[in-house]
Amino acid sequence: MEQTRLQKQMDFIVEMDKTKQIVRQTYLSDGSRKENDAEHAWHLALMTYLLREYAEKEIDITKTMLMVLIHDLVEIDAGDTYAYDEKGNLDKEEREKKAAARIFPILPIDQAQELQKLWEEFEENQTPEAKFAHTMDNLQPLLLNDASGGKSWQEHQVELTQVLKRNEHTKEGSQVLWDYARECIDKNVERGNIRLVNIPKE
Amino acid sequence: MEQTRLQKQMDFIVEMDKTKQIVRQTYLSDGSRKENDAEHAWHLALMTYLLREYAEKEIDITKTMLMVLIHDLVEIDAGDTYAYDEKGNLDKEEREKKAAARIFPILPIDQAQELQKLWEEFEENQTPEAKFAHTMDNLQPLLLNDASGGKSWQEHQVELTQVLKRNEHTKEGSQVLWDYARECIDKNVERGNIRLVNIPKE
Repeated sequence: MEQTRLQKQMDFIVEMDKTKQIVRQTYLSDGSRKENDAEHAWHLALMTYLLREYAEKEIDITKTMLMVLIHDLVEIDAGDTYAYDEKGNLDKEEREKKAAARIFPILPIDQAQELQKLWEEFEENQTPEAKFAHTMDNLQPLLLNDASGGKSWQEHQVELTQVLKRNEHTKEGSQVLWDYARECIDKNVERGNIRLVNIPKE
Repeated sequence: MEQTRLQKQMDFIVEMDKTKQIVRQTYLSDGSRKENDAEHAWHLALMTYLLREYAEKEIDITKTMLMVLIHDLVEIDAGDTYAYDEKGNLDKEEREKKAAARIFPILPIDQAQELQKLWEEFEENQTPEAKFAHTMDNLQPLLLNDASGGKSWQEHQVELTQVLKRNEHTKEGSQVLWDYARECIDKNVERGNIRLVNIPKE
């Protein structure tokens, strides 16, 4: 029985290795390549701990760190959906729910339920932990985009309205961090890395 | 003052992005490429949470997760030293101490001291948290090596005595996980992925 439980956990741990193959649209700070989901999640967990003092409401730090560590696991089946991909976002929820239904049950039932619940809490974005996790999830690519000279924003011709729309709930996790993010956004608008208006493609 | 503190934290977070460029000797489970320190640390943090029930002594889970998330940060200056690189391991400690002295002080002083202390605790390997973190750090590459058909062991012609030497303290973090690891090692000796004797190179 013990062995079966342990083997399920090990199977899950090895299966989750695929997270390292899911490439996001954000470039590393030096612009050399795009980062993947595992690297992104590692960065968020580190940020969650270091920036927790700015959380708008008190957060359970272990829960929030675990939440960001697992928030993109469903993408090993569903793929990464770029924040500004309108078409991809239409069926994102359906694809990710299907992925969750396959992935989490690899674990023993208690842990499968725990991770499923934690992922749903992240998606619903209502609790202090989920809100802070989303603030991290929005702030991190912004820091990397800024560091790489706006490479990903330029590549996708991203507009200010899109960035602000994506960040409409960022301040709910942390007003201080949103103020910082907003300054960073404005600086990149000034530099022409984020577009002010939609210029139709030829 | 607040802004200065925040800017230090942000500078550290962006600097730590370099962790994603430090390549280890372990291949991903499908053998397609070697993993990097950020991916490795993400995997360890997830494992730490999921396998904590097997810790030999009770561990502070947040502390242990943070410890594994930061345990390789010094490698952005010191580079990754392969476990079986005898020459590289001679000056590893010196290189990593120098790196720590540059890296952690990018943070505000309280957080710099906290991370420095936590990294030293990991290195000294005396507390239940450090011992469990080391068990994760040894188990994870073993799982990936096993999954990839022993690719990294074969590439470096690794011998059983080396694997056992590296794992001499693994059971101190968790006897259950060491038993699992040992079975995995024996299986890979049988398959010829880990060498039983030293065959001199021609």
